[in-house]
Amino acid sequence: MAPNSQPVLQVLVTGFEPFDADRINPSWEAARRLDGWQCDLGEGKGAAVVHARRMPCVFGAALTALDAAIDELQPDLVLCLGLAGGRSEITPERVAINVDDGRICDNAGCQPIDQPVVPGAPAGYFSSLPIKAVVNALRAAGIPASVSNSAGTFVCNHLFFGLMHRMATRPSRPGMRGGFIHVPLLPEQAARLPGALPSLALDTLVEGLRISVRTSLTVQTDLRETGGALH
Amino acid sequence: MAPNSQPVLQVLVTGFEPFDADRINPSWEAARRLDGWQCDLGEGKGAAVVHARRMPCVFGAALTALDAAIDELQPDLVLCLGLAGGRSEITPERVAINVDDGRICDNAGCQPIDQPVVPGAPAGYFSSLPIKAVVNALRAAGIPASVSNSAGTFVCNHLFFGLMHRMATRPSRPGMRGGFIHVPLLPEQAARLPGALPSLALDTLVEGLRISVRTSLTVQTDLRETGGALH
Amino acid sequence: MAPNSQPVLQVLVTGFEPFDADRINPSWEAARRLDGWQCDLGEGKGAAVVHARRMPCVFGAALTALDAAIDELQPDLVLCLGLAGGRSEITPERVAINVDDGRICDNAGCQPIDQPVVPGAPAGYFSSLPIKAVVNALRAAGIPASVSNSAGTFVCNHLFFGLMHRMATRPSRPGMRGGFIHVPLLPEQAARLPGALPSLALDTLVEGLRISVRTSLTVQTDLRETGGALH
Amino acid sequence: MAPNSQPVLQVLVTGFEPFDADRINPSWEAARRLDGWQCDLGEGKGAAVVHARRMPCVFGAALTALDAAIDELQPDLVLCLGLAGGRSEITPERVAINVDDGRICDNAGCQPIDQPVVPGAPAGYFSSLPIKAVVNALRAAGIPASVSNSAGTFVCNHLFFGLMHRMATRPSRPGMRGGFIHVPLLPEQAARLPGALPSLALDTLVEGLRISVRTSLTVQTDLRETGGALH
Repeated sequence: MAPNSQPVLQVLVTGFEPFDADRINPSWEAARRLDGWQCDLGEGKGAAVVHARRMPCVFGAALTALDAAIDELQPDLVLCLGLAGGRSEITPERVAINVDDGRICDNAGCQPIDQPVVPGAPAGYFSSLPIKAVVNALRAAGIPASVSNSAGTFVCNHLFFGLMHRMATRPSRPGMRGGFIHVPLLPEQAARLPGALPSLALDTLVEGLRISVRTSLTVQTDLRETGGALH
Repeated sequence: MAPNSQPVLQVLVTGFEPFDADRINPSWEAARRLDGWQCDLGEGKGAAVVHARRMPCVFGAALTALDAAIDELQPDLVLCLGLAGGRSEITPERVAINVDDGRICDNAGCQPIDQPVVPGAPAGYFSSLPIKAVVNALRAAGIPASVSNSAGTFVCNHLFFGLMHRMATRPSRPGMRGGFIHVPLLPEQAARLPGALPSLALDTLVEGLRISVRTSLTVQTDLRETGGALH
Repeated sequence: MAPNSQPVLQVLVTGFEPFDADRINPSWEAARRLDGWQCDLGEGKGAAVVHARRMPCVFGAALTALDAAIDELQPDLVLCLGLAGGRSEITPERVAINVDDGRICDNAGCQPIDQPVVPGAPAGYFSSLPIKAVVNALRAAGIPASVSNSAGTFVCNHLFFGLMHRMATRPSRPGMRGGFIHVPLLPEQAARLPGALPSLALDTLVEGLRISVRTSLTVQTDLRETGGALH
Repeated sequence: MAPNSQPVLQVLVTGFEPFDADRINPSWEAARRLDGWQCDLGEGKGAAVVHARRMPCVFGAALTALDAAIDELQPDLVLCLGLAGGRSEITPERVAINVDDGRICDNAGCQPIDQPVVPGAPAGYFSSLPIKAVVNALRAAGIPASVSNSAGTFVCNHLFFGLMHRMATRPSRPGMRGGFIHVPLLPEQAARLPGALPSLALDTLVEGLRISVRTSLTVQTDLRETGGALH
């Protein structure tokens, strides 16, 4: 681990608390399984260590918690995770947009409609993760994955936008990267919800997120492979 | 029609030529059915007239054609239409993003990957149409509709982004509005494609677009109804 | 119409009353639009006339109503229609199965679970409509269609099974044919239901059912085209 | 294991060889993981042992192979497994129908269209597994499951029909039960196929099939819970 004065890179991985009447959230179940994980980055590239933090599923409060975790850890990489119930793959998000539009209430009972995440900020920010390389590495490991072109308009997008806005407007570690990855339901959730929803096992999620962390720390220039959508 | 010196508002509606080996494109079939339509805006509000223009399904050339049409018509409202094969509803788009990422080639054989639509421009622009009011008016008329939070990364998003960037950076008619609406396949297309794809009849599309034009010209402040997505 | 002593064929088309808290049912809206329609069967083949009857969405009572209509009309063709909310195509059903298993209650508040439609009857009956030819003719007319391999286990399948059991066990007109076709939601229903459901316009349904009637009366040997499903 | 002269029950579990250009088939991967498994049936109920056999994905030859395996093993329970690519759950099938209608060719290059599996046999047979109890037990264990009302018209349904026809027409072990269960893709398959298909991990499949075997051997009277479909 990080021989010869190679610094150990710090990685912040966040997951959300449960919401919408469920009692678990796979984004946090996966994040906490990564807590303390030492990631060997390969020959001469040193190592990284993951710190997991649980975020409230509350507009505003989620950003406050994220800010505090970044201030505390001064991470080189921030990977925020959230649940996308109904998706069948691990989906790195391409873009965060500056709008809160709640289809349901958050955990504090708030349901903002068409409010900016940050008033006066740009309409959008692109992820600074190598999202194509992450998808490629996941698929190569036999884990279903694709790029997503919308993170929605709920607390997930809110946190993602807040992260990218902070990185654009406040000093951070040189080369710091950040982004958001949505994960599917766990099988045990799909088993009790109506509608024959897809799921991925927790072990698959955890392995997929390890690959995502390692890829995000080691691939400088993203792949030129399409991750586009016709609409 | 526009009594008492009330000016007739000019509306540009664009549709795309066919692409991806198909021989028709419902966005253009609907747009040309609207060409020349005189829209009565209600008591004392005057009238509007629609001008339809067909856009090439080609990165770059589509923007050139749009620019020329706007220069020529100096419209008060620009409604760009495109096909979203697989969607079942008329879907006003919320946001355009500054990326071209072709899952397939355009009609000129080009397939840009992760290129900006406009280098140096912002990551995104929001539609200036009252998209919630449009959806509400469509549903009230019995036409399936919802807000979409991603216009994809192909020529549709490209044109939408180019439109919004022009409106943000060049002088235009005071109060000019612009945006993008995706439409489903026609039944005759769904009948020959595999996969049990949804469709809407051309008459339904045309009626829906008339409602969209009228609503976009008469509703100043958008409704506060959720059109959000959890992811 | 049926010159030279060619008899006029009698066609019974049934649709269901609304159910599951909705106020219309497209199967009946389409059926009643066909009532009284004179179908010219082509050179020397005479003609047919359609009689529409509305069926209660009630286990048992639906079969009683169907029996009465068949006794009254002595039809050459019976086409029963039902709503398949969520499907995007007109779908002739291949097979009826001898089970009632209600996911919801019928209009009389009953929810049988795993009861036979007709105790002691076979497990299934195949449609005697030329379902492949019907699908082929619909697609050729630009109307989305495909064969369905399951009519479910609610009142639609119940009526379909009852029809085929009667035809198998009681004397009827020589050459009599019968079967079931599911139809999608109407756009006005999809516009008020959640979930971006597909729909077909009533005019498209009516045209599609005319084609289905004519094809069922004129094609003796069904096409050998696959309508199969892998699962 | 089966103390005091309690006989050990024999269980035949079949899976299919790969088809449609894929190189693995999760139905066989799961079946062979069960081979030799000793299933303790609980206090005083003795035990069972599983024998896995691989079936060719070929019309006709599959039935020959199944017959040979049944003749050899004289099983108390036959559980045939097949792949349902695109489904997200483990789905016990309710009914087999007497038709072969290949959407693609089988592994011998044959594509029968609308041929009976067994000429002169009934149109359908119901599974004799307690399918509702199996679904209930799977969900209780956190494994997504539901009843399916159609096994399709390819080699899966063909094998299922052949099994049930043999059980209906030839002597077998008293109380012998048989049926078919479809399983989803594995994650590694979904990772290389287009279309964001759902999957279940092999460990989840194997655990689910163990539960299915035990439930099928111990539950005599099926649960009265709905597994119905509206269409």
